[in-house]
Amino acid sequence: MTYLTLSGKVLSDSILEVAKEEVSSMKRKPGLAVVLVGDNPASVTYVDKKKKSAESVGMKFELVNLPKETSESELLSVVERLNNDPAIDGFIVQLPLPKQIDEKKVLLAIDSAKDVDGFHPVNMGRMLAGDESVLLPATPAGIIKMIEHFKIPVAGKHAVIVGRSNIVGKPIASLLLNRDATVTVCHSKTKDLAVYTRTADVLVVAVGKPKMITADMVKEGAYVIDVGTTKVEGKLTGDVDFESVIKKAHCSPVPGGVGLLTVSALISNTVKAAKSRG
Amino acid sequence: MTYLTLSGKVLSDSILEVAKEEVSSMKRKPGLAVVLVGDNPASVTYVDKKKKSAESVGMKFELVNLPKETSESELLSVVERLNNDPAIDGFIVQLPLPKQIDEKKVLLAIDSAKDVDGFHPVNMGRMLAGDESVLLPATPAGIIKMIEHFKIPVAGKHAVIVGRSNIVGKPIASLLLNRDATVTVCHSKTKDLAVYTRTADVLVVAVGKPKMITADMVKEGAYVIDVGTTKVEGKLTGDVDFESVIKKAHCSPVPGGVGLLTVSALISNTVKAAKSRG
Repeated sequence: MTYLTLSGKVLSDSILEVAKEEVSSMKRKPGLAVVLVGDNPASVTYVDKKKKSAESVGMKFELVNLPKETSESELLSVVERLNNDPAIDGFIVQLPLPKQIDEKKVLLAIDSAKDVDGFHPVNMGRMLAGDESVLLPATPAGIIKMIEHFKIPVAGKHAVIVGRSNIVGKPIASLLLNRDATVTVCHSKTKDLAVYTRTADVLVVAVGKPKMITADMVKEGAYVIDVGTTKVEGKLTGDVDFESVIKKAHCSPVPGGVGLLTVSALISNTVKAAKSRG
Repeated sequence: MTYLTLSGKVLSDSILEVAKEEVSSMKRKPGLAVVLVGDNPASVTYVDKKKKSAESVGMKFELVNLPKETSESELLSVVERLNNDPAIDGFIVQLPLPKQIDEKKVLLAIDSAKDVDGFHPVNMGRMLAGDESVLLPATPAGIIKMIEHFKIPVAGKHAVIVGRSNIVGKPIASLLLNRDATVTVCHSKTKDLAVYTRTADVLVVAVGKPKMITADMVKEGAYVIDVGTTKVEGKLTGDVDFESVIKKAHCSPVPGGVGLLTVSALISNTVKAAKSRG
């Protein structure tokens, strides 16, 4: 038996294609801004991908690059300016932020209607309550698009999430619960992780420990979605040992899997924000 | 072997005792208001309990009883008035609301700093993100107080929640995850519920199906917390078959368990809201 490689490429392209069509039909081009504090190389790479995708669909893109010594109040006044800028439909503050800045305070200051990262507490809270009309966090939204694209059954199934971050683990747990999965969240304090992962029909792994999920931890025929990305000897490596797992279960690759969907979900969110502003 | 009856009585009394001391040391007495639309008998009973508890600790209590035909905009203007009333530190809009009123809209309109039910999306979202400095939803907060009082181990344990309501199931899942439990949420679409409940070290049941959890569904020595309350032949009945389960596991009774803690957690929240207003 062979199993599906849950590739993000075709899906990501089609999401961007849809966004491009929507943008071309809009009178005013949607505007996306990214605020980058400092010059962390990984962040610079991510921001560059976002810029390219935004421009490829015909959006306006603004990069606000601030020095790494920027104070919290300086950053907050930039957020305020973007909240009030009519040309900007959505913006994100690239994380992580330097130590002198309180991340929570900054996220709370972003207008929730322009929060295309979906990290504002009011958007998270409404999502938790089952209201998905809000802007959803980009990576979990990308995972849901993957689930829909590959018609992965989730209702009544056991979905196991490994990792409980605010940006992936917790929100994807909410979204899968909204779709009638029985959901288990595991993390660094979980004892006997394999006991849980082996019962998963759908396994989502978002930890950042290269190849921590091996074939013996996975049920035959399960769907395994790998969100981890760690540079190992210069190579992007997932949390799942793809080579062994793909012989036993459907599995998303790294690179070429969920990562691609995160950026396209951000672009979709910006279109959604622009449309709801009218 | 005998197992603990996880009674809410002593604990609830001691929470109210603490609140009373805090109130007596405050210059201005905290004010709690309840908005009741219509005269649903169950709601009237609940509101009455809240009034008695508030007055027993020396708080001011205001009942705003509106006719069941009240329109959404009329209710929203009452919410606005309470948001701006300096004598009111916290208020709740008793649920359920009549059909002509959009519950979501009303909850969003409540000032999150006065939201002593802890249902505002911004409070839910911050709680989900691990920030428990906000006003927490009363029943889940009561369950946490019970867990602390009886020193029920949760870190590294498997907590299984049956029921995924916005007011109990989802928030208690968040709070247990914050406390390092591995958390599974089950619900009406879960297949083979007993497979999950039998692996639970801590089992929280909040469904509203009398005696649905029987002894064969529970692991020996587990902690079972029953949030269900249904009137059966005039008698308040829980979701857990207490008589059989208590021979095998620690179990909270109904009545006399979590229900008592919900009201005292509401009172605690009002003190917290008053203190943070200063």
